[in-house]
Amino acid sequence: MQKPIIYLQRTFREEFIAKIQELAPDYQVSTELSKGDLDNVEISVGWRREMELPLLNDSNLKWVQAISAGVDYMPLSEFEKKNILLSNGSGIHALSISEHVVGTLLTYYRGIGQSIKNQAEKKWDQEGIHYDQLSGKNLLIVGTGHIGKQLSASLRGLGVNVYGINTTGHPVNGFIETYSIKNLAKIAEGMDVVVGILPGTEATYHIFNSDVFNRMKPNAVFVNVGRGDSVHTKELTTALQEKQLAFAALDVFEEEPLPADSELWELENLLITPHISGMTVDFQRKFMTIFLKNLKSYVENGELFINPVGINRGY
Amino acid sequence: MQKPIIYLQRTFREEFIAKIQELAPDYQVSTELSKGDLDNVEISVGWRREMELPLLNDSNLKWVQAISAGVDYMPLSEFEKKNILLSNGSGIHALSISEHVVGTLLTYYRGIGQSIKNQAEKKWDQEGIHYDQLSGKNLLIVGTGHIGKQLSASLRGLGVNVYGINTTGHPVNGFIETYSIKNLAKIAEGMDVVVGILPGTEATYHIFNSDVFNRMKPNAVFVNVGRGDSVHTKELTTALQEKQLAFAALDVFEEEPLPADSELWELENLLITPHISGMTVDFQRKFMTIFLKNLKSYVENGELFINPVGINRGY
Repeated sequence: MQKPIIYLQRTFREEFIAKIQELAPDYQVSTELSKGDLDNVEISVGWRREMELPLLNDSNLKWVQAISAGVDYMPLSEFEKKNILLSNGSGIHALSISEHVVGTLLTYYRGIGQSIKNQAEKKWDQEGIHYDQLSGKNLLIVGTGHIGKQLSASLRGLGVNVYGINTTGHPVNGFIETYSIKNLAKIAEGMDVVVGILPGTEATYHIFNSDVFNRMKPNAVFVNVGRGDSVHTKELTTALQEKQLAFAALDVFEEEPLPADSELWELENLLITPHISGMTVDFQRKFMTIFLKNLKSYVENGELFINPVGINRGY
Repeated sequence: MQKPIIYLQRTFREEFIAKIQELAPDYQVSTELSKGDLDNVEISVGWRREMELPLLNDSNLKWVQAISAGVDYMPLSEFEKKNILLSNGSGIHALSISEHVVGTLLTYYRGIGQSIKNQAEKKWDQEGIHYDQLSGKNLLIVGTGHIGKQLSASLRGLGVNVYGINTTGHPVNGFIETYSIKNLAKIAEGMDVVVGILPGTEATYHIFNSDVFNRMKPNAVFVNVGRGDSVHTKELTTALQEKQLAFAALDVFEEEPLPADSELWELENLLITPHISGMTVDFQRKFMTIFLKNLKSYVENGELFINPVGINRGY
C-alpha cells in the first residue's frame, strides 16, 4: 500500500524535506503528484487555486497548513464539512510587516518620501519639507495578533505610546490599553496613527470607513497592512482628498494589482506599496519552525500544535 | 551702570525669556542690540556670521552657547585666545536624527523608496522590489556621542547589532563593541551598515573615502548625517556607480545646497535628503533644557554644566 502523502505546493530546500521525512517516516513527501497520488494526499502545505477542486473532491485530505496568515481565500466551509484541520502561517511575516510599518511612518514623519520626490527633480527643498517626531505619538494597532504584538514591540522601543483593538477588548501584553472593535471610531478619534492589521472576515469588511476617518484628527495618519477590503477605499480617498486625514499608507487594496486607472495613484498624501510588507528573507526557515512543530504534533496525536485556524472565526 | 547682556541671536518664546530672567536677574536679556549695547554683551546664544566680528572685537563676551551640535563654523582659536567658554546644542537633535536614520534604512530595506518612484509612474511592481530585513544586521555607528547613543538605543530595539567607533575605542554603553577610529576601514569590512555622525574637524575630513568603501561588502549601506566633508564625495560616487556599495543615504554634503549639476542627483542607489535630519519639533523647549542648566551653573560659579566644547578637540 502507498504511504499517505504530504503534498508540498511550494518548493522547499532539501534540508527541510529531510526534516519532514525524519519527523514523519510513515509519509511520503511530494512536491508533484503523479497519476493515482491524489487519493493518498493527507496533508497539504500551501493552497493553490488550481488544486482546490481535486484536493476537495478526490483526496483524503485531513490537514492544510497555509503559508499565509490570512485564509479568507480558502474554502473554509468545505473544510468544516469534511473535518479538515487548518493552520496558518501567522508569525512568519510579523517582523517584515512590522519593519514596513515603522518605515512608512518614518518616511512620512521625517520628510523622506517628500525628499525622494524632490530628488527625482533634482530639487533641494529644505523649507517645504514637513517633519514631525514619531516618538511620543499615540498609535492604535487594530488587530493584536502576532503582527500587532511584534509591531507594538518595535514601536515602543521608538518611544511610541501603543494602544490596541481586538474583538472583545481583552488585554494584551505590550499595549497600554486595549479596546473592543465596537469602539473603533471613538478610540481612533484621539490617535495620531491608526494601523489596520485585520484578517478578511465578514466582520472586518469595510470597517475602516468614513465613520472612522471623519473622527480622526486632521494631522492623523492611517496605515493598512491587513486585508485590502477592511478599508472602504472610496471613503478613504475622499478623506485624503479633503485632508480629513493628513496621510495614509496602503500596502493592500480591494483590487490587486491596483488598476492603472485607480484614482488612488493621484493622491499626493497617499503612499502606495504593492503588497510587499510581508515579503521576508529567510522565509523557508521561518515557515518550517511552524510547520515542523505542527507535523510532530499531528503525527503523534492527530492535533495541531500552533496556529490553528478557528474556521468559524475565519482566522 | 548697565547690566551685562545675554544676547539671544534667535527668537524664543516669552515663557523662556522669563525663565532666563528669573535665573539671571542681574543680566539683561536682548534679542536686538542697541547702540552702545555691544560692549555689555557677556553671553551669546547662537552664532551668526554677521555678528562674529563685532562680538569678537567690541564685546565683553565670556560664553557662547551654540544652538547646533557642530561648532566647526565658529572661530575656535579666537575663543581660546580670549578664554571664551563654548557649549554646544548637542542632544537637541539626537532623537530627530535617530528617527531619520532608522527611516532611511527601512525606506531602503523594505522597498519603500523604490515603491515611491514606481507610484509616480502609476506602476505596480512587486517582482522588482528589493527587500531585506533590518533586524539582525550588523551596524557600525561612527561617532558615539549623544546622537550615536540615541541611534544605538533605537536600533537595538529593532533587533540590530550595534557597534561603535570613537576616537580611542573607549567602551560606551549600548554598543556591543567599540573600536578606535584608526581601525575604521578594517571594522567597516564586516558591517552591513556604516552610519557617519562625525563632527567637522581636521581629523575627520574625508575620513569616509575609498579605503573604507572598497572594503565594505557589496550589499552594504552607508549613511551620513554628520558633517558633509567627512565624506570624500567623489570616491563615494565612484563606489556607488560601480556598485561597490549597494546603497547610500546622505543628508549632508560638502557643498550645500547640493548644486543642480552635481552628479549625485543621477545616482539611483543614493537617497538625497536636504540636510533635514536634525529638524526637530519642540526645538525651543529642548534647547532650553540645555541652556538653562548652563546658565544656572554659569551664574552661580562661572562654569558650564553640560555640553562644554573642548576647543582643541573641536567638538
